[in-house]
Parts: sequence; structure tokens; C-alpha cells
Amino acid sequence: MTADTAFFQSFDVTTTPAQGVSNVAALRAQMKTQGLDGFIVPHEDEHQNEYLPDANERLAWVSGFTGSAGAAIIFMDRAVLFADGRYTLQSREQTDPSVFSVEDFHAGSLTDAVATARSGSVIGYDPRLLSPEHVGRLEAAARGAGVTLKAVSPNPIDLAWGAARPAQPMAKIVPQPLDYAGKASADKRAEIAKTLKSHGITAALITAPSSLAWLFNIRGGDVIRSPLPLGQTILKNDGSAELFIEPAKISEGLLEWLGNEVSVKGPDEVEASLQAFKGQSVLIDGQLSSAYWMQAIRDAGATPIAADDPCLLPRACKNAVEIAGTKAAHIRDGALLSTFLYWVATEAQEKPFSEIEIAQKLESIRRSASDLKDLSFDTISGFGPHGALPHYKVNVQSDIKTGQGNLLLVDSGAQFMDGTTDVTRTIAIGEPSAEHRRMFTLVLKGHIALATVKFPAGTVGTQLDAFARQFLWAEGFDYDHGTGHGVGVYLGVHEGPQRISKALNKYALQPGMIVSNEPGYYKSGDYGIRIENLQFVTEPSVPEGGERPMLGFENLTWAPIDRNLIEVAMLSEAERLYMDLYHARVLELVGPLVSPEVRAWLQEACAPL
Amino acid sequence: MTADTAFFQSFDVTTTPAQGVSNVAALRAQMKTQGLDGFIVPHEDEHQNEYLPDANERLAWVSGFTGSAGAAIIFMDRAVLFADGRYTLQSREQTDPSVFSVEDFHAGSLTDAVATARSGSVIGYDPRLLSPEHVGRLEAAARGAGVTLKAVSPNPIDLAWGAARPAQPMAKIVPQPLDYAGKASADKRAEIAKTLKSHGITAALITAPSSLAWLFNIRGGDVIRSPLPLGQTILKNDGSAELFIEPAKISEGLLEWLGNEVSVKGPDEVEASLQAFKGQSVLIDGQLSSAYWMQAIRDAGATPIAADDPCLLPRACKNAVEIAGTKAAHIRDGALLSTFLYWVATEAQEKPFSEIEIAQKLESIRRSASDLKDLSFDTISGFGPHGALPHYKVNVQSDIKTGQGNLLLVDSGAQFMDGTTDVTRTIAIGEPSAEHRRMFTLVLKGHIALATVKFPAGTVGTQLDAFARQFLWAEGFDYDHGTGHGVGVYLGVHEGPQRISKALNKYALQPGMIVSNEPGYYKSGDYGIRIENLQFVTEPSVPEGGERPMLGFENLTWAPIDRNLIEVAMLSEAERLYMDLYHARVLELVGPLVSPEVRAWLQEACAPL
Repeated sequence: MTADTAFFQSFDVTTTPAQGVSNVAALRAQMKTQGLDGFIVPHEDEHQNEYLPDANERLAWVSGFTGSAGAAIIFMDRAVLFADGRYTLQSREQTDPSVFSVEDFHAGSLTDAVATARSGSVIGYDPRLLSPEHVGRLEAAARGAGVTLKAVSPNPIDLAWGAARPAQPMAKIVPQPLDYAGKASADKRAEIAKTLKSHGITAALITAPSSLAWLFNIRGGDVIRSPLPLGQTILKNDGSAELFIEPAKISEGLLEWLGNEVSVKGPDEVEASLQAFKGQSVLIDGQLSSAYWMQAIRDAGATPIAADDPCLLPRACKNAVEIAGTKAAHIRDGALLSTFLYWVATEAQEKPFSEIEIAQKLESIRRSASDLKDLSFDTISGFGPHGALPHYKVNVQSDIKTGQGNLLLVDSGAQFMDGTTDVTRTIAIGEPSAEHRRMFTLVLKGHIALATVKFPAGTVGTQLDAFARQFLWAEGFDYDHGTGHGVGVYLGVHEGPQRISKALNKYALQPGMIVSNEPGYYKSGDYGIRIENLQFVTEPSVPEGGERPMLGFENLTWAPIDRNLIEVAMLSEAERLYMDLYHARVLELVGPLVSPEVRAWLQEACAPL
Repeated sequence: MTADTAFFQSFDVTTTPAQGVSNVAALRAQMKTQGLDGFIVPHEDEHQNEYLPDANERLAWVSGFTGSAGAAIIFMDRAVLFADGRYTLQSREQTDPSVFSVEDFHAGSLTDAVATARSGSVIGYDPRLLSPEHVGRLEAAARGAGVTLKAVSPNPIDLAWGAARPAQPMAKIVPQPLDYAGKASADKRAEIAKTLKSHGITAALITAPSSLAWLFNIRGGDVIRSPLPLGQTILKNDGSAELFIEPAKISEGLLEWLGNEVSVKGPDEVEASLQAFKGQSVLIDGQLSSAYWMQAIRDAGATPIAADDPCLLPRACKNAVEIAGTKAAHIRDGALLSTFLYWVATEAQEKPFSEIEIAQKLESIRRSASDLKDLSFDTISGFGPHGALPHYKVNVQSDIKTGQGNLLLVDSGAQFMDGTTDVTRTIAIGEPSAEHRRMFTLVLKGHIALATVKFPAGTVGTQLDAFARQFLWAEGFDYDHGTGHGVGVYLGVHEGPQRISKALNKYALQPGMIVSNEPGYYKSGDYGIRIENLQFVTEPSVPEGGERPMLGFENLTWAPIDRNLIEVAMLSEAERLYMDLYHARVLELVGPLVSPEVRAWLQEACAPL
């Protein structure tokens, strides 16, 4: 089966290992012309995005590897692809071993590669693709190794790619109405401008597309799965702004929506506009922006102030309208997902379906909602051993059919104008084993612990992550991914700065922040389990009989959790009560939105344990 | 009652607010001579220790404030004392408000003070008292404020203090035998030397007294409560070392103990010895050493490499002999503490005793052990409202007597050659209230959760801290101190780098690390609760039926926890079982070591709940 054009998600195989052979050769010819012994290829593009336009899939073009994270370094005599644990198998299958050796990807992979490069060699990088902080670490490594690190332009990959390179996307940019955004752009800009002013900063150069979307209440369509407008803005400390976007992307009414205080300019005018800030301070994010922009500020004679993108925290802390929209979107999506789960519980229990058929069934149900804008990411539809790959992305080559006595893991989400969803359910096909039930229940207990925890202001995700893992840890298990990521409102399904994971994170969880709660367990070559709901941080309140205000989480995602997989004897009374209340609420919120036969099934699926 | 000379602990009031008036005036005269508009006074001394010799109590001398942490900045027209929340009351009582204003102490207090100082002013500091990292932050703040930060020598306080300043201590330095240390100094030095060599580093300048003690298997007596030898060492990457100590401190046999590879020199010879490393790399800890030594390395023409003190982690990860010694010391101390608790349960339940009498009773019981070397810190003996001050240190002015119906909190510890103890017990005097029992049980549940948690390698204390707080958080309570600190073996009772607290800590908990487990609850003006045992990190092992190795904790402290304060109905079955097993083990280990009447009481105190 090949991808159906009526679907958002494609299951095509888009690269071959063979392309690495010819494309690396073409790149090396360009490197030679530019006097480079090595060249750094990150996955990120000019906008530091997770999802890229086809034109910016440089890592995939040069190597064949299509994972959502990674990097490569190409020398004249060897090439190394860095891919993390999620992509160990995929990275080896997608690349030609005669060209690429595959090594483990982590924050220091490229730094280590530079630190161990031959002394005297010249290694190039495209400053538009790396953050200033990353370049700083690479430069320190280069100094130590006697290596010359050289910013190059144009990118030799773009030269080698040539006419075959797809065009940059030109999707229209449209208003995100106040009914969804909840706060006028002028108000957002005024608040940030006030903060800039109080710090003696004249302007901020903001380059993160999600910050542009949030700040101006606009959405774009340049990137699949997230409605991001690609561009840059200079926000001044009087609240006025210059927005740099391709003129072709300006939709009817956009300029009126942006208002008089926002002047729209072409993407080539940023550098010229920066000249106005000569001798003054310009804020730039040292991680979310690229080194190119830091240098552009310096070149203009201004002083770059490296600090957090000023939209970062206000965007993460959703306002009441955004929370209300997100709640509504989740209830509607819960009805769609429940309809899908009903189909799994009936038809897919009866006969085998392929992973692609399952993903397409879910998408077709979601597409029955007229207000669906996109999926929020490509559905992970993994049966049995494929479920054990946390980021498995089925394609026509990997596709397998379901069988009895194993688990189906479906991680999916939707983009609506009022909210972004992300939910994982694991369903037993046929009769689950005692081991399946034990492991599922250990994961569920962790999910409940993180859903119900209370904590004081100032608590960071690092402090809460272990609540979701404690029951697995106690019995000698763990999972190798974070427990919770931030989620946008009709924006990226992965959004910072908050995070619930083992990694040290300095950003306190604040009211209105949306995070996922998704512990899992993966038995390599056998099956995978993940239970994911989204939840948001509630306002502080003092528990009855207590002294201090505590924050907590309120659940957003409403869809049944497979009762066949719960070993009730392993639950405490409080955990059992939580599940029964959760399911009762699913029935109450979602029941009225589904068909009579789905509702009948939902009553069973949501019955008390 | 005044302090008895037969006791280690003194309860005297050693300063008056009035001394701040005259001493600040004397300091300002010296500052004027040195051309300073301001002068920075940290609590730490030349050795960055928590406990100081009297001669180095500069903050107390200038202000009257005797807390274990804090700082001051003295300007010509005003003086600010920084004291943290623990010392809010004490700092105001001990200082004269006509001279000192008191502000909140945190890591950035002095930086903020410099950042807001008058532009053009000159602020002095003693580079022997501040770490290079701290000086770096102060310099950045000074640059931003147009302030000149000036390293001065001699310290104007020492000049102003003059002849009245006590002499530096000259206690003998003695070997710490291999039966206690577990590993020969030559072996420790060889391992660190190998690491230095592999990083291209010629030598390490080590200045932390606890590192000297550990590295050379020696102990000193210059500082109360911890047997630290004050000095410095240069450890070379061939395993040889120079040890810089006062000749008067060399005890008989010490030079033989140190061996041929360690040359002992006077404290004034460090700078000259550094000359040998001209053009080479010398490691120095950027937080545990002082800026003076960083500069001394530069002045010698060597390159300072700022990195962790190489003794830090090997010292923290106790070897098998150290763990065995610590276990033995804790059992003996458990017998002493149980004897004290018996006294509380009998005599102190019958009639009032003062907090000092209680502390002295405990010390006199501990002194009955012929092998007691010292207390490991001044006993915190706090009744009722004084228990609500987590770091309360009773003195003759603050001393109150016990009464019925409130709680007595006693936090104490001992130094033995084989181990250092630290234990807190909270005991109801008379009948506890329902609230006392509820709050004590919430604290106890957290203590048990942290005692029994399992976790994978790589876990840091920040990830575990909330386990101890979760039950308090759930009901709207918290405590404003860390949950666990590292502990040495016949060394400091506070030892890094591991820590269990809300603060982000990057050091993973490793087998052999000792940490305290001491959640608490404090009701201001009423009562305090803390339950503290020490525990150490166990070797990784795979739980039965599990897949991955997990670390955990093994308990070290054995003394009854007041059953009168436990609300059994609030405990889970597992928690109740933990307590019963804990008490059974107390009886088993400690019972044989106490008198018959104590043993009879212990049987009741350790009965199943």
C-alpha cells in the first residue's frame, strides 16, 4: 500500500542509502572548492525547527537518514552520522556503511568530533544552522585541537544539491483570531517591551517561528504538522515591531490584522534594519536563534545580549482562553479517538490489519471532523516488536500486520485552531499475557502518580520525573525517554522550556503550562507500552487543612485506557479510585459526542474496575 | 548555667551587638588607609570551611553574627549583613541596627550588592576568602556598575583586629590508620595521578582540608567538630606530592606515615613550589579553592585548569572498609543515643529540663564512650517553638525548659575514628496532640519513601528529593531546607558533592556515598519535627524479575523513632512493615550494647506498631 493523497501522513520511503554515496561525493567537491577538510551538518534548519520544509532536509539529503534529530560531520576521507538510541536501527538501515559510520548522538557529539579532528584541519559550518552557544562550544573544542572552525556561506550542501533542491515553501500567513489567542498582540508586545526597557535593552531579535506565531497571533503553513510562519521579527522596547516574511506569504487582511505598529518587510531586510540599533543593546536567544543572527547584531555595531527569547515563558503559560480552547479541542479529539478505539475493540480484534491501515483508519476518523487542520505529528502505529521502538514511524517497507496476543501502541495527535492534542493508548489485541498486564499496570501507576502530584511554586520537572518511574524502578525497569514535554496551542506539539525528565531543567512549572504525562515500558523485539495524556499546571491553592499554596495538574485528554491491561490487584485504593473517576469523566464528556454504538462500547470500556 | 569545661559544646554567648559598633569603626579606619569605599566580608575563611578557628571568625568579629553561613559588605556610610531564612531572628538579635541592616542571604547577595554600589566606588575583597568563580561573578557585577573591585592584602579586618585576634590553631596532625581509611595514600595518589596525566595536567593544587585528610590518610584538630588538617598540597601526576603545613603540627611518626614520596614543607612555600610548573597545566577547583591560589598559579607562569578537586568524588564514594567502620560507629552511637532516649522517656517525661541540660545529658552519655573524639556538630536541642527553628543553637540566654504536651527536637552527632554520625529524633514530652501525630506521620512517610526508593545509575539527588516531601506537599506543607547532605567518615558532617534537595545538583548518587535523610515540618512559634537517619548508596543490582540494575539506600542509623507520634492509620501496609522491621533491627543491633533497664525500655520502644 502506498500513501493515499487524501491523507496528511505519508508512509513512503523517501530516501535510499545509495543517495549518501553520490551526495557525499558532490558535497566533497564543494568542500574542496571552499577549502574545507570537514563540514558539519546538523539536523536543524535556519529556524531551529523540529519539522523541516523539504528544502531544508539537508541531513536526509546527504546521508539518507530521516530521523527527527541527529547530525553528521563529513570529512574528505570519512563521514560520521550521529543518531541517538531511538534511531540506532533506523540510522543503520538508511545509510550506506561504505560512506557513513554511525555513532551515538548527544549534546556533545559534534564538539567531540571537532576535538578529535586532525590538528591543522579546517572544518566548516553554516552559521545559520547552529546556535551561538553551540558554535561557542565547537570553537573551544577547535582551539584545543588546533583545528580551524570556519563559518561558510553559501552552505556547500545547498550548492551541491543545486537545481534538484525543492523550493522554499510559500504558504499564506493568516490571523489567529482573538477567540483562540485570548490576548491581543499589542498587549503581548507592550508587556515584553516593558521588560526590555526595564533591562536597558532597545530591541529583541526573535527568530523562533513559534514565537512569531504567538507574538503576532498569526499562523502559517510552511512546515507540516505545526502551523508555523517562518520569518524573523525585531521587537522594539516601545512595543512596535518589524516582521520579516516573504511578501508572497501575506494573506488578505493580514496587514490590517498586524496593525500600524508592525511594519512588514522582506526576509532580506533584517540586516539593514539592525543598523538602526548601532551602539545599543539587542536581545537574542543564545540557543533558539542561530549564530548568524548574533553576528549580524555585532556587524550592525549593536551589543548582543544573550538571554531567553522573551516570548518563551509567556507562550508556555497559556492564558484562560487558550486553556478553554485546549480543553474543548481535547474533548472533541477524545470523541474521535474513542471512535477509533471502538473500531480497534471490534473490527481490529477480529482480523489482522496492517500498521499503516490502522494509522489511516485513525486519520480518516479524525478527518471526519471538519475543523481538523492537520495531525500534530506523524502517527506512531506500532504492533508487537515495533511498539518497543518509542519513535517508530511505519512506512511501506516496515509495515506489519497485527496478530493475537500482543500489544498495539498508537501515539497520535491533532491540530485544531483551538488546541493541539497528543495522546498514546496501548491496546491488547487478543488476550494479553500476565506479563503484559503487570508491565502495563506498573506504567499506569507511574502515570497516575504524576497526574495527581501536588507541588509548591518553583518546582521544576526534574524534581517530578521520578514519580512516574518509581514503580518501574522498584522492580528493575525504566524507559529511555523523557516523561513529559511542553505542548503548544495550535502550535508545536513539542514546546519548551518546561520539561519533565531526568535532565536538569531550570524552568519552574507554572500555571497554564501544558505538559505530557507519558511513561512507558519497552521490551526490545517483543512489545511496547506507553500511556500518554496531556495535563496542564493549575493555579496555586492551599489544600484544605494545609498552610502553603500548592500547584498541581488538571487532565486534558479523555479516552479510555484499556481495562484488559490493568491488573487491579496491583493498584492502591486511591489509584483504583482515580481510574474509575477518570473513566466516568471520559464517558460524561465524550459519550454525548459519539455514535450510539460507540457510546455503548464506551460504557463498558469506562466501567469501574 | 554556663558551659562546663568538661564538655565539647559551649553554650556561652560569645559576641554582643555592641562589638559591631566599635569593630566596624576600626575596620573603616583601615579601609580608608587602603583606599576602599567598601569591603566584602564572607563567612568562609582561607580554607573555605564551615567551622572556623576563632582567629578566622571575621564575620562574627565585625558584626556580632555567629551563624554558620552569611556575609557582610561594609561601606563607609552603611553596612549590610546577609543572613538566610534560618537566621532571620538570630541575625537581628546579634547585630546593632544602628550599624547593620540585615538582608536575605543567597548565592547572589554579594553580587547584587556590588551591582548596586555607587558608580566609581572601590570595593575591596580578600582573595584568600573567595573562590575564583565567586570573584568572577563579582567582577562582572562590578564592571556593569562602574565599580572597581580590588583584591587587598593584608585583610583590613586582620589589621583592625590586631593583637586581640586569637592565634591560629596548631593541633598535631596524626595518621588515620589503614584499618579505618581502607586504602593507602600511595594508591589514592597513584589513581588520581593517572587521571591527571591522561588529561595532560602536570599537577593539582588541592586546598580543601577534607581532601588533604582523605588523600594522605591524616587527621588534624585545628577546627572544632571536624578533624581537619589545615594546609595545602601539590599532587603531581607521578603520584608524588608536596604537603604544606605548619611544622609545629607535625606529630611523631607523621613523616614516616606520609612516606618518601610526600615532601612536607612550610605553609609559606606554596608559591615558590608552583614555580616548578611554569608553562604547564595545574588543576585547581574553581569553587573549593580561593581566588588567591588561582592567581598564584598564574603568577608562577603555569596555566590554571579549573576543574573539580580530584579528591571530591573518590572521597565521597566510601570504600568497603570505610562503610564497615561507619556501620560499626553508627551501632555504637545508636546505643548511646538510645540510652539518652531512655532518659528522656523516663526522667525528662517526669520533670522539666532545660535545653542545655538535655544537650549536656546527651553529651555526657556520648562521652561515656572512651572512643568518642568529638561531637560532629553542636547539638540542636530545641523544645516547642525552638524546635521550629531548624538550626537552633541553644545558649545561656535562649535556654528554656521543657513542659508537657509539646515536642523536643534533638539533632546531634558524634565523631569516632571509624565514622561520623548525624541523627535527629523528635520526642513528645507528655501527651502529643492529634496535630503533632498527623504532622509527624506525614514527615515519617516521606522519610520512609526516601529510605526505600530504588533508582538507576546516573540519578541525582534533585530527582529524589520530592519523594521525601510528597505527603507534606499533598496536604499543603513543606520544609525550607534540603532533605539530604553528604557525610564524611571521621571527617566533615557536611560533605559534597552529592546532595538531596530541590536545588539542581549534577552529581549522580554513586555506591558508597553517605547521605542524610531528614525531612521535617516546622510550625513557627509552636513546634518542630525532623526525622533524620543516615543511609548510604548500595551497589547496583537487578531486582528479582526485573531487567535493569538499580541502586538504593542501606540504613546506617539505629535508634527508636517515637511510637507515640506515629498515627498508624495513616501508614500503608508497606510503611508499617518498614517501621516494624526498622525497630526490630534497632533492638537486635543496639539491644546487646545497652544496660538492662535501657534494653527493657528499648523492647517497648521497638515493639511492632
